[in-house]
Amino acid sequence: MSSPSLDELITSLKCLPGVGQKSAQRMALHLLEREQAGAKRISTAILNAIDTVKHCQRCRNFSDDTVCEICRDEGRDQATLCVVETPADVLAVESSAAYRGRYFVLLGRLSPLDGYGPGQLGLDELEQQFGEGDIREVILATSATVEGDITAQYIADCAARHGIKSSRLARGIPLGGELEFVDSGTLSKALSGRQEID
Amino acid sequence: MSSPSLDELITSLKCLPGVGQKSAQRMALHLLEREQAGAKRISTAILNAIDTVKHCQRCRNFSDDTVCEICRDEGRDQATLCVVETPADVLAVESSAAYRGRYFVLLGRLSPLDGYGPGQLGLDELEQQFGEGDIREVILATSATVEGDITAQYIADCAARHGIKSSRLARGIPLGGELEFVDSGTLSKALSGRQEID
Repeated sequence: MSSPSLDELITSLKCLPGVGQKSAQRMALHLLEREQAGAKRISTAILNAIDTVKHCQRCRNFSDDTVCEICRDEGRDQATLCVVETPADVLAVESSAAYRGRYFVLLGRLSPLDGYGPGQLGLDELEQQFGEGDIREVILATSATVEGDITAQYIADCAARHGIKSSRLARGIPLGGELEFVDSGTLSKALSGRQEID
Repeated sequence: MSSPSLDELITSLKCLPGVGQKSAQRMALHLLEREQAGAKRISTAILNAIDTVKHCQRCRNFSDDTVCEICRDEGRDQATLCVVETPADVLAVESSAAYRGRYFVLLGRLSPLDGYGPGQLGLDELEQQFGEGDIREVILATSATVEGDITAQYIADCAARHGIKSSRLARGIPLGGELEFVDSGTLSKALSGRQEID
């Protein structure tokens, strides 16, 4: 490119996930040619977010305040806690509109080889919340992988020591899923977890 | 989302071309969780590019200086001028490594209904360059659309008035193209433009 500033903009945009040289080029030219106001808005929003956003002291989700809006919301069911791996998972559960309890965000999953032990996942704080006596059920919404399963089992054991019931998200055929295209592991889970029709 | 700053970051990222709600969410969370240094770099690069990048006075391409590197490069063939629609097209031609002349960037194509007349495309400046007498051939690399063809014809007429030869990029089967999947218009151009084998 004939402009070092534009080159640097293209290179920096490659920090975005899923953005390679071609997309970064397209984005940079679009911002300069047609969207300078939007470009300034992105620049300000990034600096502002880095400065402002921290982790909620109670649920570890992203929040502008010490305790996030969801944790402060007294209209929510304080007796149910949904444990998820990432802030994106909170968004996913919220968008289902099927859950009105609180959350706890692990920001990872148990994986000692990668340096993720109970300390990194905030499991001490979680156990402390178990000890406070408000929670009656823990929904373990960690991912359906080996590490996710191990993390769920670890937390379930801990909850059991405090007399708290644990549950895991149902496994089965996704909505609109064609049986033909469902993998055998999922199908096996769907069979073993089959539900009686009333 | 439980954080207004994060919400604003997600909304602002939707200014990028081809980025919707889901991608913007993924990008924002990625920047905050794993790439704060990269995020700051993007923010700085945007502000710097908006401040620094202007259009080259000679070829209208993006440039940090009044006259861009390509126009200043005396090793380039000053007798050939390649007319393209956008700065991205300059990148494309440069990456072919098959051209060593100068460029002229129209920043659009003739389309009076959209408000793009000869004035917006800098055709007065182009004609002035024709008048200077250095240029012997104009390669019209506008896009292969109706507006691109009309723009090329308009510039070719203007070049002819100054006794300058014009050419248009060859139309035909793309490299690696299977005849079976080439559209009939392209095939028709490829037939009428067939080349003798020496």
